Order: sequence, then structure tokens, then C-alpha cells
Amino acid sequence: MAKISALSGFPEWLPAGRIVEQHVIDTFRRIAELHGFGGIETRAVEPMGELLRKGEIDKEVYLLRRLHAEDADDEGADPSRRLGLHFDLTVPLARYVLEHQNDLAFPLRRYQIQKVWRGERPQDGRFREFYQADLDVVAQDTLPGHVEAEVAIVMAEILEALPIPAFTIHANNRRLSEGFFRAIGLEDTAAVLRSLDKLAKIGPEAVATLLRDEAGATDEQAGACLEFAGIRTPDGSFAEGVRALLERHAGSGAGTAGAPEATVEVEEGITALDDVVRRVNAVVPGVCVADLSIARGLDYYTGTVFETFVEGHESLGSICSGGRYDRLAADNRHTYPGVGLSIGLSRLVSRIIGADLAHPTRPVPTCVLVTVGSEETRERSEQVATALRRRGIPAEIAPSAAKLGKQITHASRRRIPYVWLVPEVTGADADRVRDLTSGEQADADPATWSPDSDLLHARVLAGPPTP
Amino acid sequence: MAKISALSGFPEWLPAGRIVEQHVIDTFRRIAELHGFGGIETRAVEPMGELLRKGEIDKEVYLLRRLHAEDADDEGADPSRRLGLHFDLTVPLARYVLEHQNDLAFPLRRYQIQKVWRGERPQDGRFREFYQADLDVVAQDTLPGHVEAEVAIVMAEILEALPIPAFTIHANNRRLSEGFFRAIGLEDTAAVLRSLDKLAKIGPEAVATLLRDEAGATDEQAGACLEFAGIRTPDGSFAEGVRALLERHAGSGAGTAGAPEATVEVEEGITALDDVVRRVNAVVPGVCVADLSIARGLDYYTGTVFETFVEGHESLGSICSGGRYDRLAADNRHTYPGVGLSIGLSRLVSRIIGADLAHPTRPVPTCVLVTVGSEETRERSEQVATALRRRGIPAEIAPSAAKLGKQITHASRRRIPYVWLVPEVTGADADRVRDLTSGEQADADPATWSPDSDLLHARVLAGPPTP
Repeated sequence: MAKISALSGFPEWLPAGRIVEQHVIDTFRRIAELHGFGGIETRAVEPMGELLRKGEIDKEVYLLRRLHAEDADDEGADPSRRLGLHFDLTVPLARYVLEHQNDLAFPLRRYQIQKVWRGERPQDGRFREFYQADLDVVAQDTLPGHVEAEVAIVMAEILEALPIPAFTIHANNRRLSEGFFRAIGLEDTAAVLRSLDKLAKIGPEAVATLLRDEAGATDEQAGACLEFAGIRTPDGSFAEGVRALLERHAGSGAGTAGAPEATVEVEEGITALDDVVRRVNAVVPGVCVADLSIARGLDYYTGTVFETFVEGHESLGSICSGGRYDRLAADNRHTYPGVGLSIGLSRLVSRIIGADLAHPTRPVPTCVLVTVGSEETRERSEQVATALRRRGIPAEIAPSAAKLGKQITHASRRRIPYVWLVPEVTGADADRVRDLTSGEQADADPATWSPDSDLLHARVLAGPPTP
Repeated sequence: MAKISALSGFPEWLPAGRIVEQHVIDTFRRIAELHGFGGIETRAVEPMGELLRKGEIDKEVYLLRRLHAEDADDEGADPSRRLGLHFDLTVPLARYVLEHQNDLAFPLRRYQIQKVWRGERPQDGRFREFYQADLDVVAQDTLPGHVEAEVAIVMAEILEALPIPAFTIHANNRRLSEGFFRAIGLEDTAAVLRSLDKLAKIGPEAVATLLRDEAGATDEQAGACLEFAGIRTPDGSFAEGVRALLERHAGSGAGTAGAPEATVEVEEGITALDDVVRRVNAVVPGVCVADLSIARGLDYYTGTVFETFVEGHESLGSICSGGRYDRLAADNRHTYPGVGLSIGLSRLVSRIIGADLAHPTRPVPTCVLVTVGSEETRERSEQVATALRRRGIPAEIAPSAAKLGKQITHASRRRIPYVWLVPEVTGADADRVRDLTSGEQADADPATWSPDSDLLHARVLAGPPTP
């Protein structure tokens, strides 16, 4: 089931691995649809003008060119019209929503599972082509706060259904963070967030230096930010910690003019975060913690922000991140706020396969191998297989009328659980079925026989395969 | 449900259209797996050296370049190592099979449904990005003839399950065609096939000219080829037509030295084609005809060749084509012959949507909209929705505690079939469910209530939507 990667950064799976990946995709889809999210797909390419709107990630984009284009500027002289492969599913969603706002019903509940491409250095263990799986609610003009918990609940249920160890969704709130920074006198809240976002990577001392150098913090302010980021509670008790900290540091900074508004902002953030943690845990107990270190580098979040970590696999980083953004897209008439979460699906599947967190019960869909007596009687075997398939039982026919032992080996090598023994092979009067696990054999009629329901389809089970 | 194509050649669908596309993909997968075909996915990119191995289609390839690559030759000075997007799923399959031959079990039964990219002129009504859905059996060294019928049977069952009008699989056999051309003295069989392949497009007279100019045919030979291509029978009776034609023309050509071997080839082709037509029709009656005009331009077919046409939609051309190839891939140790058929899935879905051949029962997955009495009691509504989802019933909660009429409109605009009326909304003692189709209303318990099974999931029905 090993990963194939002869082309560095472009993962591929053997058939057994693909069953695991398909299982993850199917699980995502099933649970998203249970919650009324509909699937969409966008084209893989966008004009460079769309892709580079958020300037910072431009280095990672793959540009397209037709091999034998009439001239180099085949796609138009305007470089913003040239086509590139999308590097996430958020930029295409924003474009799709604006383009089709008149044909979509808002709030739009959509999921999207597609490959994305990034020109990352593969030596960093990153993929250049990988699946992302996104879940967003996008509203027209106004988006009620309760959606922030709802999207997290759907994602918690999806992750809970996947073959991964215990995971925790860490939630924070932008208004809470920014209000707190302002209340202690730090006005460049974006710089503070960017510094705190590096905490796990570079540690508190280096972050304190950054806060002083980049966000203009005093030693006391930097200390307060680090204390703030240290607050992590499984319930609403983070509020007490924040209020106590605020009391100690509120008058400490330079600018206290904004303090009353900032304090209101902090309290609004507390209420919103408390609501998210409580409501997510009400549906999936113990899965969500308030973690005030969660900063998320990107500017565009405006409410709750999320990151998700898997126990024992912290090296993966956050496997599922996102939050609320008040301005996914906008035109002269409307603004589109939303809440979204995204799983780096290929990275997660790669770990599931690589660490033997799950395995398929067999590497093929086939439940029954129908034997063949001779090429002259192959059509009789085909009738058996057709009868089984009409009843939903995956069946294939032995590729050649080899000796019975060889036909059985064909099945057992693929872990196909049953072999159908036609009279032409056995010399018996009736059809028989052999259960390859138990070795037992019994008369059977293709119009009525059924396999053990656990064996009907290839399934994905947690843990390593049994040898 | 209209198609979106603000970027010419790159189709996208609104949510309702995507439900139709997903239904086609799911149907393909379900039936392929019933026949024991496993899914694989290959990366979207291949080195140009792989892509251009079959020279002829090089103009259609999209080349990739990292936007801010250190220099233009970032991917290596060797141009064959540069990356391009795959333009079909056969080239990647050949590479995958060779690369992983030691980890794959042969014969490999695989299906593959992925986007491919071609730099076609979109003004010709062609797509630049589209789904292909492929089905192949690939063997190591030897591939028994019966597989040719088997792959066609699977495809016939897939097409039969799709919401399209009656279709016919037209089958021919390369050995039969080539044997016949040689038997009447035409040695450049590739040129004859290329000429006949244009029959539907340019008509018999122009083809006769081509046969004389390109394949060196006499008038009599050209006439014989056209007579041959005119043979089309729903059963094995084409054999008589071929034999009669052969008798009349055998001595006509220049080179009759090869005639005895050619006649053997013809008879072998007749047997194989008769077998395919009979066996496919035994499973899906009336779906397969022997059609000796089917030539398929590509060199690499060596046995049965297939094209598929839909009644009333002949303008689409062949919606599903393929055949047997004796050399998909090869190295010093092994040759990999196979049989494969491929559907141009996006093109078909585009027609299904554009010609109203099918529609989804609703544009969202949601079966039940749970109403909300007030934001304070939203969690009570959430408990109802959670209870329904735990029982597999797709449910969403009204986005705001608006007036009941507005909440019901939210459901009816999306064709959500049921509205769950919580006591907080109705003032009644118990939960009630309203069936929006009948308008009927009844007490209901989220732990036991079930929807009409036809309404549980969004489904795709044949024909245009009812207004």
C-alpha cells in the first residue's frame, strides 16, 4: 500500500491506498451532505489576476502555457488574463460566488473536494499536487454568528468518522485577540498576530523579541501577550483568565484611549468563543478547546479561527484550519461573508497510509470470484456473475479456465472472500460457494445466495492490516 | 441549472448541475466496482517526454511553469523532463503500470475518472478541461480474447444506467478489417483505416478519392472498401456479407500472394467479432451491432474496436470509444496488452444538462429544514437536527429565527421536502412535520419519524424538471 512518488511532490497510491483515500473522501461527502452542504466543483484554472489578488503566495503558482501556442502571449497580452492552476479552493469559491450570485441561493452551504497545485519545494516534505476538502457557509451581506459553531460541528463529525487518533479543535476569536491587544495598548494587532502565529515554531523568547521589534511592544506588553496566548481551557473558563490579565495590564500600555471600546470587543469575543466551544462540545463531547494562542497568519479572518491537531501526530501541524471572514468577495451591490474550514486531505491520507492508521479489507472491490470450467462454458459462469451483480454483489470471472487451485489462488492473492464453484469445475451437480476464510463450502444458488454483509464491499478498518 | 462558462472551454456547473454530474460519476463507479474494477487516480502531470511519446497530439498539451521559478529552465535543462497536464488517462495508465508492475496484480481491472486538459480551440465547441471516465483490463504478456466482450458489457451496463436515450455500441475488429484489405490487395492498411475513419464526416465519394490517393487503391478496391464499411448487422450475419464480398474481389488486386494468410485473418476476426456482439447482447439485449465502418484513427488498436452513438444525439459523435491494444506499455521483461473503453464524461453531462435529459429532484442534499423559534432556543432545534442526522436523514437548521412563513419559503425555494416545526415556533405541545408537497402536517418525534424513502436523498430523474 506504499505511496508512489517517482515524481517528487506528486503523490499517487496503489489500488489499496486509493481505497483508503476514497473512503476519506466518501466520509467527508456523506457527513457534509447530512448537514445539507451541497458539492460544487470549480475549474482547475483561474486567470492570474484572480490568483494573485492576495499577493503573498504568488511564488507557489503554476502557470499554464499551450505547448505550441502561436506565440508566447497566446493567452492575451494582459498578463493578468494568463491562466494558472488554483492553489486553494477559497479563491475559486470567491470567484464562483460573485460570478453566479444571481443563480445561487444564500446562505450557500457548499463543500468542495478537489486537487490543488503549489510549486512548493518538495524537499520540505510538501506536496505539489494534493486534495483539499473545504466546507463553507457563504451568506449575502450578513452572516449570523451561530454559523461559526455549526461549521465546526460538521467538521468535528467528519474528523470523528475518519480512521485517525483523537483530535482537538482549537478555537480562538479575532475580536477577543485584537480587543485584548488594543486594550493593553498595542495598536498594530496584525503584527502581534503574525508574531504569536510563530509560537509553536520558534518558542516564547523569540516571539517576545518579535513582539518588541515588529509590533512595538514593551517588555510588559510582550509578556502579557504571551500570557494571553498561554490560556487554554476546555470550556468557558478562559474568560476569567482573560479578564484577570486585562485587569493587571490594562493601564500598562501607551494608548489607553481606545480601551473602553477594546474592552467591549474583548467581551464580545469572549461571548462568541464561549458559544462556539460549548455548542461544538454539546454535539461532539470534549473535541473543542478555547486556545488563545491560535492566531492564523492570514489577515482576512474576522471572528472565530480554528486549528486542529491529532494526538501523537503533532508533527503534521494543523490538519484542519479556517474561520470566519467578513469579506470573501464583494461587488458594488453585495458583500459575501462566510465561515470555512479546510482539510489538507492528501497530507492526512498520506499519514493514515504511511503510519498504518487504517487498511482496506481487500485491495479490489470483488466479493466473489466465479470460476470457469473451460472457455466453452465461460458464458455459463458469466450468467452466474450477472445474477450476483443484479443483486448488488460485486463479482468477477476467473481470467482463464486454469486448474481450480490456480483460480482459487487468483482470488486469495486479492483477498476476494468467496469463490463460486461452477459444476463445470467441480463435477458436482450444483453450484457451490467456498468461503476462503473458513474454508467451508456449501451448495448455492446465484438467485438467492448472499455473502456475509461485512464482506459484501471492501471496507476500510482502523489499524494496520493483519498479515 | 445552466452551464457556466465565463472562461471559454472550462465548464462549471451550478449546484443542481453538479448533482447530475456526480450522479453520472457515482453510477460509473458503482457498476465498475460491481464488476470488480478498482479505482485508481494518477497525478495530473506527466513529464513532456511521456506525453509526447505518441507525437501526433502534441499541440494540445498544456505546459506548466512555476511563476517565480529561479530561471526559465527551473525543471531541468532536459525539455522532456518538463511537466505538462495529462490530456487523457491512457498515457498515465501506461506509465503507472510500468512504474508499479511489481506491486500490481495482473490482470489489472481498473477504472479512472479524472479531469484531463487539452489546449483545443474552444470555438470548436470543445472543452479545454473535462472529465474522462476510463475502464481498462491490463494483462501481463497475454490477454485472453474474452476480455474484449467483458469490458464492453460493463460499459453497456454503465451507459444503460445513465439518463440518456437509447444508445448503440458499434463494434468492429482490426484483424477483420486489415485481413480484408490485404485480401483484396491493399497492403497499406493504416492508410485505408485512416481514410475510412472519415466516412461519417466527408461521405463515400471523398473517401473513395482518399483511398485512391492515400492508400493506392484502384476504383474496384476503393469500391470494395466502401461496400465493406457499409456492412452493419445486429448479429453474426455480417460474416456472410464479408465472405461474399471477399469472393467477388479477392483476385482483383495486385498482390494476392498474401491472400491465404489474409483470409485466415479475416476468419479469425469474424469469429472474434461475432463473439463480442453475441456476448454483449446476451447481457444487454440489442445494444451491440457489428459495424464494419468503425475504423478508429489510432494505430495502436489490434483487436476489437468500439464506438458508441446515442439516438437523437448523433451530433455528439461517439460518446464512448476504445478497443483492444496489444502493447499499452512494455519494458525488457514484459509487454502489457489491454482492452479499454473511455467516456468523454463532461461532454455527455453537458448534453444531459443542456438538453434537459435529466434533472435533480432538488438542488441541495437537505431533506428536512428544522425551524428555529428564537436564537435563544436554537440549540433545541439543533438537537432535533442532530437526532435526524444520526438516523441518516439530511437536515439543516433555518439560518435565522424569522417568521414561520419566511422559514418555510427558505425550504420551498430549495425544494427541501419537509419542514420540522418546533414547539417554540408553533406554540403547540409537540414537534410537528409539514410535508411541503401535500401541505399535510403531523406530530413527529425526531427519534422515530422517517421521510418518504424517495425523498430521503436528492435523486436524479430522467427528463426535464417539472416547473
